[in-house]
Amino acid sequence: MAVLLSVLYLLLFDPARLFRNPAPDFSHLASHCAHVQPIPADSFVARQDTLARTLHELGAAAYIAEPGANAAFYANLSGSAWHLSERPLLFILTPSVDDNNRIVANISVLTPSFEATRAKLLPLPSAADVTYPEWPEDADPYQVAVSAIPGLKSGTIFIDGAMRTFVADGLQKAVGGGHKVVSAPVEVKRLRERKSTEEIEIMKCANEVTLLSIRAAAEEMYIGIHESEARALVANALTSAGLKDVSVISLFGPNAALPHGSGTDRTLAKEDFVLVDCGGSLHGYVSDVTRTFALEDSRIPAEHLDIWMLVWEAQGIALATAFNGTITADVDRAARVTIETGGYGEYFTHRLGHGIGLEGHESPYLRGGSDDIILTGHSFSDEPGVYIEGKVGVRLEDCFYIDENGRPVLLTAGVGAPSTTPWDI
Amino acid sequence: MAVLLSVLYLLLFDPARLFRNPAPDFSHLASHCAHVQPIPADSFVARQDTLARTLHELGAAAYIAEPGANAAFYANLSGSAWHLSERPLLFILTPSVDDNNRIVANISVLTPSFEATRAKLLPLPSAADVTYPEWPEDADPYQVAVSAIPGLKSGTIFIDGAMRTFVADGLQKAVGGGHKVVSAPVEVKRLRERKSTEEIEIMKCANEVTLLSIRAAAEEMYIGIHESEARALVANALTSAGLKDVSVISLFGPNAALPHGSGTDRTLAKEDFVLVDCGGSLHGYVSDVTRTFALEDSRIPAEHLDIWMLVWEAQGIALATAFNGTITADVDRAARVTIETGGYGEYFTHRLGHGIGLEGHESPYLRGGSDDIILTGHSFSDEPGVYIEGKVGVRLEDCFYIDENGRPVLLTAGVGAPSTTPWDI
Repeated sequence: MAVLLSVLYLLLFDPARLFRNPAPDFSHLASHCAHVQPIPADSFVARQDTLARTLHELGAAAYIAEPGANAAFYANLSGSAWHLSERPLLFILTPSVDDNNRIVANISVLTPSFEATRAKLLPLPSAADVTYPEWPEDADPYQVAVSAIPGLKSGTIFIDGAMRTFVADGLQKAVGGGHKVVSAPVEVKRLRERKSTEEIEIMKCANEVTLLSIRAAAEEMYIGIHESEARALVANALTSAGLKDVSVISLFGPNAALPHGSGTDRTLAKEDFVLVDCGGSLHGYVSDVTRTFALEDSRIPAEHLDIWMLVWEAQGIALATAFNGTITADVDRAARVTIETGGYGEYFTHRLGHGIGLEGHESPYLRGGSDDIILTGHSFSDEPGVYIEGKVGVRLEDCFYIDENGRPVLLTAGVGAPSTTPWDI
Repeated sequence: MAVLLSVLYLLLFDPARLFRNPAPDFSHLASHCAHVQPIPADSFVARQDTLARTLHELGAAAYIAEPGANAAFYANLSGSAWHLSERPLLFILTPSVDDNNRIVANISVLTPSFEATRAKLLPLPSAADVTYPEWPEDADPYQVAVSAIPGLKSGTIFIDGAMRTFVADGLQKAVGGGHKVVSAPVEVKRLRERKSTEEIEIMKCANEVTLLSIRAAAEEMYIGIHESEARALVANALTSAGLKDVSVISLFGPNAALPHGSGTDRTLAKEDFVLVDCGGSLHGYVSDVTRTFALEDSRIPAEHLDIWMLVWEAQGIALATAFNGTITADVDRAARVTIETGGYGEYFTHRLGHGIGLEGHESPYLRGGSDDIILTGHSFSDEPGVYIEGKVGVRLEDCFYIDENGRPVLLTAGVGAPSTTPWDI
């Protein structure tokens, strides 16, 4: 009886649902990035040598990082390859002069003694042998780290800004007052900020397939679907596309007015926009795309459609101002002026965008108050939004990079971005 | 045909497996900690006031932490309640004098402006209103944080040692050279290290049910089971027991010789010990228990049984030396001397134990080279081991605390710990 009633309900109110595929097949997405290769070992070695030369020029004796995005960039040593614990394991790079009088990198990894076997299994690319100074459980790990740094009598030690304070404190104590342990300066940070062609190729494909996933998932959505179901559809598509560490925000109607907001698992009303903000990683590089869209049966209020167009306009105008040499704050400003002119300035409550690469959010940022300079190879999200609490939220986000001609190029351009209307994303 | 061959194989080689329950029912474990209550709001307020008094005594103007174990201790603000990002959200506690001339705590939470609505939903216990200084996207968050600290003209700012360096750098820059931003000293760290009766009650139950879970899972194990299957059994039992954030290491025979080692998904041989090291959290407090054991059908080599007894002896001797007032290194030493005397000193490659509470590993540590003093309320793991690579690994781990009489008490004593033989865990 209950089954009959359900069928009757569906026939009357939602006939399409009867024919809907309960577990949609997103397997066609898997081929899109199948050809994309991870960063080769040679490129890691080149990065290490570039860092060594930079340290040498700046008079620094070493660069030290815990496992994380920077150690991943230089030595394939991410936070998931080695989980942080109270026992420090440190990536240490020191510059030295080779037989051809070139500055090259020496790599060592400080490891707890009893973990040395496991540490040596980490696949760290390096031109020369990696050394593994070991600290026994009853020793000071930072003393051991510091004694692994040749030429320490002169020079500063640069550390990764993401290092935990107790590790930085330990290093400073071990080198004594005569040396400085300081966060690496912009010259070092830029080495990772500015992406290579290889990196951009990976990021393009990751972002393209993310947008393709949103589109594929959107085709399965319907008036009455829950936020959690929409999220599951997108996550399923991203996973089918081969992305790792997938994350999805899915918010309907007024719930989208909190940019990172917790939904209430609302069901989609005809008047609601769907906001999907999602990404995943391909060979370690993260994608990030947001679409705010309507379904075929949606009846979006006219004001909300106006807001959508305004956000769309701001996204395009911001992109058109981002060139090699532009100040980051000016790009944020361009989007902000557009939305202010449209009358919604007070509702554009967050910065325009963030750098993106091995981290989903990384420096530099497109925000007011920042005087960072945009350079070739930089990559950013471009994501203006309007958020009116209790009412509506609209955000459009594509990432772009600055090409070798100093011009901005969307990472999603290969699959037809930007979107053009709320029905054509 | 394949099915017939399988049945024939099982009848010949592993008849018991035919009658084994494919999905064992561990639901009886759920009742063990059902009565245990989380830390009440009043206790959080008491912790805050104690910290305020300590800051006042030490002449410090504030204590600042990112979401994590310390912010969870003082304000229920764990790293899972608010995920760290590049945008700082900070717990700030400042001491002030109330109408009764008592030193009390003021709590503020620095939040990104556009996240303020979400930040205010965090359930932070506090005697007075929590204030939420907001930093707009184009402002310096650290300047906003520092202006929320009354009385900053005098005094140091203490920070959580787990804070990321770039946050500490930002705070130091904002306060200028006239003030110091330093990691909180031992007087502050001890406030969390020394557990209250309420905390010990939670930790007892968490550790008891962890041991009960290992025992229940062990009953389902058999010669020929894979490491991954054993791990799944234990994880299933811990989850059925109601623990969160469950983690399980399961290693057989020589694979157990790497203390944190990656197994090869070995199948259990009759000659192999099973090593299970696992835990989970109850109301935020983490458990940690290791058992190395044999099954009824095991045929453990005599030398390995001798090693087991030696580790067992070291575990007991170490426990018997840990009193209020003992130096941590001496407890490590007691276990080490026992194992050295037995001839296996070189194979006891790690420290004896770690503090435990809101973090699985926290200060103080039971290790050589440490001169920390053990005090009432301290809680530690007691986990000696012998690890001979390619051959065998044995570790026994129970956690204990120092009771109000200054004596060590196993957190697993309520369910019959310590173990007595490899067959009676």
